Amino acid sequence: MEPAELMQLAIEACRKGMAQGQSPFGCAIALGDRVLAQSHNTVVQSVDITAHAEVNAIRTACRTLDDIFLSHAIVATTCEPCPMCMAALHWARVDTVYYGATIADADQAGFNELQLPAAELLQLGGSPVKLVADTLAYPCRQLFTEWQANPRKKVY
Amino acid sequence: MEPAELMQLAIEACRKGMAQGQSPFGCAIALGDRVLAQSHNTVVQSVDITAHAEVNAIRTACRTLDDIFLSHAIVATTCEPCPMCMAALHWARVDTVYYGATIADADQAGFNELQLPAAELLQLGGSPVKLVADTLAYPCRQLFTEWQANPRKKVY
Repeated sequence: MEPAELMQLAIEACRKGMAQGQSPFGCAIALGDRVLAQSHNTVVQSVDITAHAEVNAIRTACRTLDDIFLSHAIVATTCEPCPMCMAALHWARVDTVYYGATIADADQAGFNELQLPAAELLQLGGSPVKLVADTLAYPCRQLFTEWQANPRKKVY
Repeated sequence: MEPAELMQLAIEACRKGMAQGQSPFGCAIALGDRVLAQSHNTVVQSVDITAHAEVNAIRTACRTLDDIFLSHAIVATTCEPCPMCMAALHWARVDTVYYGATIADADQAGFNELQLPAAELLQLGGSPVKLVADTLAYPCRQLFTEWQANPRKKVY
């Protein structure tokens, strides 16, 4: 599957989450042409601060494959992974992570981000996971704008 | 609750997990004298690479309080949190994290750790979470020794 095609699935998941009042983050994981997970953030809905889109997607993909390792999988996430999600993707041993919006965009939207770019975490930590920025970055950033219109939106 | 007392609960949870074939990590969270969570790692059992002891404990504590924030809570974890867990504890806005063994100990035991100390992640990221090393470090390190004796142990 092409990264941009997978990112469209992540964007679709994000919009589905926002329609339910969730935060503006979506993630999809594929192994070859098989989609293993298409998930949105459920922090508010599931009252679980760890339920970021990437963590939800990893958990679903592990269940789908019945394997704790997602070797050779590619990941598309609408926003640059925070250190929690980037480290989770490292543990899952995925191949490549594509992202659109940035941690700075999420920070500007009001989320309490650690100020550590995903690329820096991978480099400092010595991870072999590959990271590709600017994948459908404009439509991914637009998700924050759509979400801002929700008067009941919550930041954390 | 005293940090050492909370750490004993984390060690107890870790041993319970190891008796079920799980990895040698335990975590407990308290708010004042109320224990919100006492959890062990379930990565193997739940086929979920994100199910570290700290993530499991945070999820349980959020459910217990019906709140995504664990403000003023203290955390005892048998091993220094990996970047996934340290960032999750930041998102949860806990007050102080006490740990025993180190990421270097877990790395030496065979776990595929990112080489980034928890203190460095907090400093680089600009987190207000407080971190205290060397809390019952010797008994926490002993947990790895006990776990090494299990012929069916799994690393990841």
